Amino acid sequence: MKLKQGQKLLFIGDSITDCDRAKPEGEGLFGALGNGYVSLVSAFLTSTYPELGIRVVNKGISGNTVRNLKERWQADVEDQKPDWLSIMIGINDVWRQYDTPFIKEKHVYIDEYMETLSNLVKETKPNVEGLVLMTPYYIEPNPADWMRKSMDQYGAVVRQVAEENNCYFIDTQAVFNHVLENLYPASLAWDRVHPNESGHLLLARAFLNEIGFSWDKGIGEQ
Amino acid sequence: MKLKQGQKLLFIGDSITDCDRAKPEGEGLFGALGNGYVSLVSAFLTSTYPELGIRVVNKGISGNTVRNLKERWQADVEDQKPDWLSIMIGINDVWRQYDTPFIKEKHVYIDEYMETLSNLVKETKPNVEGLVLMTPYYIEPNPADWMRKSMDQYGAVVRQVAEENNCYFIDTQAVFNHVLENLYPASLAWDRVHPNESGHLLLARAFLNEIGFSWDKGIGEQ
Amino acid sequence: MKLKQGQKLLFIGDSITDCDRAKPEGEGLFGALGNGYVSLVSAFLTSTYPELGIRVVNKGISGNTVRNLKERWQADVEDQKPDWLSIMIGINDVWRQYDTPFIKEKHVYIDEYMETLSNLVKETKPNVEGLVLMTPYYIEPNPADWMRKSMDQYGAVVRQVAEENNCYFIDTQAVFNHVLENLYPASLAWDRVHPNESGHLLLARAFLNEIGFSWDKGIGEQ
Amino acid sequence: MKLKQGQKLLFIGDSITDCDRAKPEGEGLFGALGNGYVSLVSAFLTSTYPELGIRVVNKGISGNTVRNLKERWQADVEDQKPDWLSIMIGINDVWRQYDTPFIKEKHVYIDEYMETLSNLVKETKPNVEGLVLMTPYYIEPNPADWMRKSMDQYGAVVRQVAEENNCYFIDTQAVFNHVLENLYPASLAWDRVHPNESGHLLLARAFLNEIGFSWDKGIGEQ
Amino acid sequence: MKLKQGQKLLFIGDSITDCDRAKPEGEGLFGALGNGYVSLVSAFLTSTYPELGIRVVNKGISGNTVRNLKERWQADVEDQKPDWLSIMIGINDVWRQYDTPFIKEKHVYIDEYMETLSNLVKETKPNVEGLVLMTPYYIEPNPADWMRKSMDQYGAVVRQVAEENNCYFIDTQAVFNHVLENLYPASLAWDRVHPNESGHLLLARAFLNEIGFSWDKGIGEQ
Amino acid sequence: MKLKQGQKLLFIGDSITDCDRAKPEGEGLFGALGNGYVSLVSAFLTSTYPELGIRVVNKGISGNTVRNLKERWQADVEDQKPDWLSIMIGINDVWRQYDTPFIKEKHVYIDEYMETLSNLVKETKPNVEGLVLMTPYYIEPNPADWMRKSMDQYGAVVRQVAEENNCYFIDTQAVFNHVLENLYPASLAWDRVHPNESGHLLLARAFLNEIGFSWDKGIGEQ
Amino acid sequence: MKLKQGQKLLFIGDSITDCDRAKPEGEGLFGALGNGYVSLVSAFLTSTYPELGIRVVNKGISGNTVRNLKERWQADVEDQKPDWLSIMIGINDVWRQYDTPFIKEKHVYIDEYMETLSNLVKETKPNVEGLVLMTPYYIEPNPADWMRKSMDQYGAVVRQVAEENNCYFIDTQAVFNHVLENLYPASLAWDRVHPNESGHLLLARAFLNEIGFSWDKGIGEQ
Amino acid sequence: MKLKQGQKLLFIGDSITDCDRAKPEGEGLFGALGNGYVSLVSAFLTSTYPELGIRVVNKGISGNTVRNLKERWQADVEDQKPDWLSIMIGINDVWRQYDTPFIKEKHVYIDEYMETLSNLVKETKPNVEGLVLMTPYYIEPNPADWMRKSMDQYGAVVRQVAEENNCYFIDTQAVFNHVLENLYPASLAWDRVHPNESGHLLLARAFLNEIGFSWDKGIGEQ
Repeated sequence: MKLKQGQKLLFIGDSITDCDRAKPEGEGLFGALGNGYVSLVSAFLTSTYPELGIRVVNKGISGNTVRNLKERWQADVEDQKPDWLSIMIGINDVWRQYDTPFIKEKHVYIDEYMETLSNLVKETKPNVEGLVLMTPYYIEPNPADWMRKSMDQYGAVVRQVAEENNCYFIDTQAVFNHVLENLYPASLAWDRVHPNESGHLLLARAFLNEIGFSWDKGIGEQ
Repeated sequence: MKLKQGQKLLFIGDSITDCDRAKPEGEGLFGALGNGYVSLVSAFLTSTYPELGIRVVNKGISGNTVRNLKERWQADVEDQKPDWLSIMIGINDVWRQYDTPFIKEKHVYIDEYMETLSNLVKETKPNVEGLVLMTPYYIEPNPADWMRKSMDQYGAVVRQVAEENNCYFIDTQAVFNHVLENLYPASLAWDRVHPNESGHLLLARAFLNEIGFSWDKGIGEQ
Repeated sequence: MKLKQGQKLLFIGDSITDCDRAKPEGEGLFGALGNGYVSLVSAFLTSTYPELGIRVVNKGISGNTVRNLKERWQADVEDQKPDWLSIMIGINDVWRQYDTPFIKEKHVYIDEYMETLSNLVKETKPNVEGLVLMTPYYIEPNPADWMRKSMDQYGAVVRQVAEENNCYFIDTQAVFNHVLENLYPASLAWDRVHPNESGHLLLARAFLNEIGFSWDKGIGEQ
Repeated sequence: MKLKQGQKLLFIGDSITDCDRAKPEGEGLFGALGNGYVSLVSAFLTSTYPELGIRVVNKGISGNTVRNLKERWQADVEDQKPDWLSIMIGINDVWRQYDTPFIKEKHVYIDEYMETLSNLVKETKPNVEGLVLMTPYYIEPNPADWMRKSMDQYGAVVRQVAEENNCYFIDTQAVFNHVLENLYPASLAWDRVHPNESGHLLLARAFLNEIGFSWDKGIGEQ
Repeated sequence: MKLKQGQKLLFIGDSITDCDRAKPEGEGLFGALGNGYVSLVSAFLTSTYPELGIRVVNKGISGNTVRNLKERWQADVEDQKPDWLSIMIGINDVWRQYDTPFIKEKHVYIDEYMETLSNLVKETKPNVEGLVLMTPYYIEPNPADWMRKSMDQYGAVVRQVAEENNCYFIDTQAVFNHVLENLYPASLAWDRVHPNESGHLLLARAFLNEIGFSWDKGIGEQ
Repeated sequence: MKLKQGQKLLFIGDSITDCDRAKPEGEGLFGALGNGYVSLVSAFLTSTYPELGIRVVNKGISGNTVRNLKERWQADVEDQKPDWLSIMIGINDVWRQYDTPFIKEKHVYIDEYMETLSNLVKETKPNVEGLVLMTPYYIEPNPADWMRKSMDQYGAVVRQVAEENNCYFIDTQAVFNHVLENLYPASLAWDRVHPNESGHLLLARAFLNEIGFSWDKGIGEQ
Repeated sequence: MKLKQGQKLLFIGDSITDCDRAKPEGEGLFGALGNGYVSLVSAFLTSTYPELGIRVVNKGISGNTVRNLKERWQADVEDQKPDWLSIMIGINDVWRQYDTPFIKEKHVYIDEYMETLSNLVKETKPNVEGLVLMTPYYIEPNPADWMRKSMDQYGAVVRQVAEENNCYFIDTQAVFNHVLENLYPASLAWDRVHPNESGHLLLARAFLNEIGFSWDKGIGEQ
Repeated sequence: MKLKQGQKLLFIGDSITDCDRAKPEGEGLFGALGNGYVSLVSAFLTSTYPELGIRVVNKGISGNTVRNLKERWQADVEDQKPDWLSIMIGINDVWRQYDTPFIKEKHVYIDEYMETLSNLVKETKPNVEGLVLMTPYYIEPNPADWMRKSMDQYGAVVRQVAEENNCYFIDTQAVFNHVLENLYPASLAWDRVHPNESGHLLLARAFLNEIGFSWDKGIGEQ
């Protein structure tokens, strides 16, 4: 387990991260962490490693692109002084190119995406103990699909930024692809983007694996 | 993994099971399984064993005692023809004795509890492939607390019924006790009964362990 | 124009037809026809052929399969004594197989679909002056997609039933395929099923073309 | 077809244009264009000329007179830099004279109307490729009706401004008059001003005819 | 003043009478008489003739035609045993012919109207001390307007029934015509049918005049 | 009739005047004048003297005392430039002394009341053609009742201010006293302050009598 | 203290008793006893005599007269088998005679009141250990007030029935009269009927005094 | 009775004090004092000592710690110029340490608690005639419970501050302990913090005893 006693773990991202979290704080009781993978990660940590007292904060905002993250980076990341930071961004950067193709100023193309994400990571990496980069994804099994193909390219950018900056890296597309061999997208997400609980659990498990969560801990002791 | 391809797993119980599930069906998309341990169990099964196609049905109803289960047993259990059945009942049987002590006809005392639960189990055991009995619990660390003490006695009844009928058995009180060594009840449940997501995850993990869920399955393959 | 003065045109189907129509009547002022292709067809007929006084009735119900149509056929079709009847059914028959694959009793497989649709058409054809069969569709450009492939098979059934019974026939999948050469599905329907106004207009135009609507009528006269 | 690839078409006006559009943007998915003629025009353009990628923006605001348009012209027209602009204004300028005759400062009399509209058109005409002027209308067949008579005078002003500035011109009153030969006003608009879908379709068709929309395009190709 | 101490005055009719009255009773405090002419009549009687104790009951139902009155005549008129009865019906009988011209089974044509009204009056006249017939009306000044012309014909039927049965008679159309010489319909009723408070006051005054209400009573005494 | 063609009549006061009027304007269609005596006065004027075009404005605000009127006098009276002004204030000045007797800073005692009212009247009288002063009232028949006795004293102040400034004067308490000889207060106002429609009609009639309204006008002409 | 360990105390009455209690049960947690004197009595008993375990049930229904009590006596009193019964009824029996004086069938005059109340008491007295009769009241200090005078007469009936049947008796009017020497009715009840918390506390104290509640019990022990 | 004629008594605290009071004032009719012990104290004073005219003000705010009181002390205490002041604070200071143990900046530890409370008391004591300090409490009978143990320590601080500053002192924990000998916490408060009416009555009685309230006053006089 890579997180240490009393550390603060902050998640930033779009609606997949947000999931109706409490605003502005993004932490506390009564569903303040939303009802997605962030809340599941926190529940796993609290129930399995209660002695560590890991503090989880959710700063996702629905509809955000990397351009929005840049605007609120100082307030929502730097000022929070997290020990660990997890970023999952890019779905809306791509999606707007496909659902409202004529409103071009809302599109974040791949060059801007790469430069902005790279700058944010370089700026913050020295200040945190761990930085996790999660790729955007699209719950569509056909790699030739227009939007899936774009998403894969943005995912490759995330991988490259992670490697250049020595970050933890999670290929969320791969996580979903594995399940899509058996299940049709409609059973996981009504719009191939916003997953149901099964999909969020896949994201949470991938995150926990990356940070060294032990699935066996506590099992059998009870 | 003890469940087989295409089997139906039905949960019955009180508000811990219910968790705002869709009524009357209790299965399907869009939160139909509620937002508690049943939904988590289903999400674990779907995301980890998608090839098995396990069908999960939630028949919990808030406020129920074992007396209520008896009344709706034919419609909500027998008629559903589940392959696996999980029962968690008893919290309200005890709670009413402590929160409304003067309204005695709403109390289900331990003799009625034992006899009713035992009869239901005996009646249905031959018709299912697996039957899981989960004890009631109280998220209170003091074993001398009046209500905790009663709950432990009802839990002992469940253990006895499980043994006599050769059922799977989960001691949920033990699951919570383990965490209460490090955390105060208020961080898990506002009323020491209805847990937050951390608490439901504990229940889901205990259930999955009992049915042979493999935590390593699929990890690393992605 | 194939419809004659004072005739009643009745549409039956699922949510694509329903579109929040008034229930139970399904006709009248103030949005009683819903906000989909049925309402558009009626608006085209009223504004372009006001002298004909065509009466449009909407009997779509969300979530319906052909099995549901059969149950309400007497009340919602036969008793209404329409002069023209239009049927678009089958999307849910297929969709349930993909979004809730484990709940098999909600699936309407292709044999039941064909037999039921065929019987309904045979029963009613003699009583109406015109009967229009519209295929189900899926706003997905990849013909190898699992659900699109199934939908194409159900569409082929509709074509066969139309031919055997000498009905008017509309291949709605072809209508959408044409636009999907230029637009990604996300710009037409959030779930590839329920279209926005552009999609409903495509359905309305296809229907109007089939019944001999003249696009030039009235243009220039004003 | 007079609009070219990638152009932006902006509509400004009163409640007939507004129709519950998203504010402040007035474009995007999920009904952002409202549910009136603007949305229909957009749906026709998207479904019939998907390859052109015409971007439609709705800047109508309920209750507006030409005096209000003048106040928000810079922000809602000039700053938007549309390629094409369509203006339909004047109904409230007249209506207030008849429904609240004693509140005279809310009346916009014909001299102010002409001067304001003329100035706005002169100011913007050089900056757009096409400018369409639609007359106000009143869905009342009796030309001697007080309010209809006034509306006709305001309509004549629009015609004059269009001619002086070489704009496209649509006589919406004539469009409705044609249908009123067969239908009573109550079947088109509860207050003779706000039309139902049939009425909005008439406005949309008149607009599309004026900009060279081809009704046959795509028909038969599918 | 023709009403005597302690008498019950019952109004029946359509939405003009209903005006959101309490249902089913239609009398009592807190707006139970609705907010239209019935409530005004009651307020005039109570405030000017408090010593008479006239009891007013409102049995109007929105959307009713004379066909509906016939169906509920026993329960809502005969069983109530009023001393005085006032009937205003016919607007919807006519209106449906103009706003939904194609749905013919909802139209009540003039022969049915005359026969039904006449029978109801003949049946009840012997049982009441006073029976007031109010014509339907249309707040449209043009006598050549299609719907106004029809309404005048129905109004003539009411006059004839009143004369044949020796009833009190109120020509409500004449009441509105008088004001329409100075005011446009839009200032009295958004749809030329449902009047604002000025219009309801006109109806109340016409009714009160017919029953011998003294406008000077009590003035000067205070 | 003392009001002349095109004049503006403004009412200011407390909740009796307010009656849920539109804010901030207090005039226009759709109930903008509230549902009390102001709306009734306007309806009487519009329906009986439509040719005069009297414009009525309601500036009542619930809970106001004369202290509040002073604060908003410039904006709500002077800036509105009415031709006629009607003031009814004082009920809350007295009421707070009886319903919350211990919160003394909310009480407006009689000296402050007299001075403030007198100043407002003196300031505005020269700018209007007519100024009507209506006393506060209490719908309680017992003159020895504590609150009724106070209200009578405040009413005497209004009479004195009216006389000193040559204003029109209405003794609203006398109006109610007349009816209270026959009716118990509970049938007019649930709290002896806020009247039902009968009570508001009494106020409206007293006002209209004072300004020379002719009850016979138009009667018989129709 | 006259109540004994484990006894059930049932209150029946009108809105003063009801106070938004849970229906149909009228007992339990979370405000089930309403927010009036019944809830206060229960809170006093529970907090001061917790060892007695007195069970309080509220069967008040707003608007009830003694005529309504008779209709539901079997279900709401007899079937509940209370040990102690408290009745407070009569306010609506009187009130309807004053707030809706013309609707005479809703009035319960004093003969019917006496006979009905007397019969109910005679029927039930033998079945309970204690029966408390509380008079109706009117929070009006003037004994010559019409409605107060009637209420006093109904109160005298209650006293007589209590004496004849050897019941406990509470003169609630006297309780309020005492406070009205210092406070105006408006500070206790907006309509002189429904008291605020001060008024309900007066009723609760009077009841507790009658049943031998000891105000000193437990004070000083803590 | 220690309070004198016309004095103002102000309560400040957290949610136990707040109880949904009117904000910002915290006094007046219609539940402005909330529905907890403050409202009960006021009702006791008003109903038993109406001649004293004690004015009660509630300035509790849910969730407050002593840190919050300090921030609003000037506005909510000093500026209000109370004659008597009652403070009950500390529950949230402790609770946050147990329900959200990882969010440490929201915890108010005992040193800060003592210093802040002590300073506020010293600052205000000279300006008031009476100052009452109520301890925080926890409705948990087990003195070894983690949170109960902390609460007892904070309560001891309050006792010490009271003694050092010569304040009135109420040990609320002792009040609840007395009842917990007979009742389980669940029957008094769902979360062992927010009491039902029985619990608030206990607090009110303890307060009234401390200020010399006479339980016998007025009893017997009625």
